Amino acid sequence: MILGANSAMGRPKGRTEKAELAENAILEASAFCIGNEGIEAASITRIAERAEVSRALVAHYFPKKEELFEKVIVYIARMGVETIDLSAENLGADPAGKILVIVRENMEFFMKRKHYYRCFILFYHFASIDARLRKINTQFYDRAVERMSGPVLELNPKLTSDTIKLWSEILYRGYFFSIQRYFTVEHNRSAENWRSDAEQEIGLMIKTIRQLKS
Amino acid sequence: MILGANSAMGRPKGRTEKAELAENAILEASAFCIGNEGIEAASITRIAERAEVSRALVAHYFPKKEELFEKVIVYIARMGVETIDLSAENLGADPAGKILVIVRENMEFFMKRKHYYRCFILFYHFASIDARLRKINTQFYDRAVERMSGPVLELNPKLTSDTIKLWSEILYRGYFFSIQRYFTVEHNRSAENWRSDAEQEIGLMIKTIRQLKS
Repeated sequence: MILGANSAMGRPKGRTEKAELAENAILEASAFCIGNEGIEAASITRIAERAEVSRALVAHYFPKKEELFEKVIVYIARMGVETIDLSAENLGADPAGKILVIVRENMEFFMKRKHYYRCFILFYHFASIDARLRKINTQFYDRAVERMSGPVLELNPKLTSDTIKLWSEILYRGYFFSIQRYFTVEHNRSAENWRSDAEQEIGLMIKTIRQLKS
Repeated sequence: MILGANSAMGRPKGRTEKAELAENAILEASAFCIGNEGIEAASITRIAERAEVSRALVAHYFPKKEELFEKVIVYIARMGVETIDLSAENLGADPAGKILVIVRENMEFFMKRKHYYRCFILFYHFASIDARLRKINTQFYDRAVERMSGPVLELNPKLTSDTIKLWSEILYRGYFFSIQRYFTVEHNRSAENWRSDAEQEIGLMIKTIRQLKS
């Protein structure tokens, strides 16, 4: 499971903490360069400069530049899942509250780290061309929908499993799209206003789900 | 209005039909190269080869390569709007039918022209970095939501203008996201099955909108 929080947090046997720190610094620098300057501009030299390590070290951890982008995407997703799952642990019993926290944390995660989102949208472009990246994206997608489906069932226990899946997808795309719109559409307003709008939309969805008959 | 069907169809004064054909051939070739191979690979030489014109002609119409991508995006959007508006003209009086036609035509448009979609998703990436492209994207977004709002009001005349806008956005993101998912997520099924699923989702939204109290 590519996005499993546990597997992602565990260190593979034989890896030292120092090696992991260096690798993460390189991935972080790569996300910055790719997100802000594009994949072509993200040379090993630029990444090494940004990470404040030698070119040789970058080449040691990531011998093939083609694989680096994939690793960056998995790294960002792992960070995102950890952040969101951690905040979800301390939720109360209210399913509407759980959904709002998932939405809010997802938005916060990308709004605070714009280069991550820019990497992700570039990743969607490459996923539309490359079957391997499409496979990775499918795992992200399934995981996000799955995370939504628990609170949806709690919102309305009368729902069939098909309807739960459908509304989980609608909720997921609600916040996914809100993030995409935040980054790609002009808006002369504060992030706070913009976020509260998105939450209002999610609120409307929640109200609708509660009223459904099946 | 960048997307006005009339202004897009009208030929500017002094332009000959031949010039327009050449320009469109170059834009079409550019969309193919950018969509399938990426913006860096889409050199003037590659585009001229694909359009079967001379490099000099490409340079004549598009002296600055930086502007070419923007022109390609506007060209694809113009084509899309014309296709969808034409099919919407012959709709019956049923608002649900109108919404389904808008959705179906949008999906068809991109599913038949995969390189167009691939250009578009790359455009979203650049819009997240470049304010000028973000402005263009805002016009596309507003236009799509506006196109939905007529049938939504017809579906349920009790709705307030805020609710109409909100549900128009939800419907728009429904098909937008379906297209994005089609291109970026694995699906072992025919395009037909996949499309009918999306239409079922839209059908559920329509049913919900009809039941709303305000």
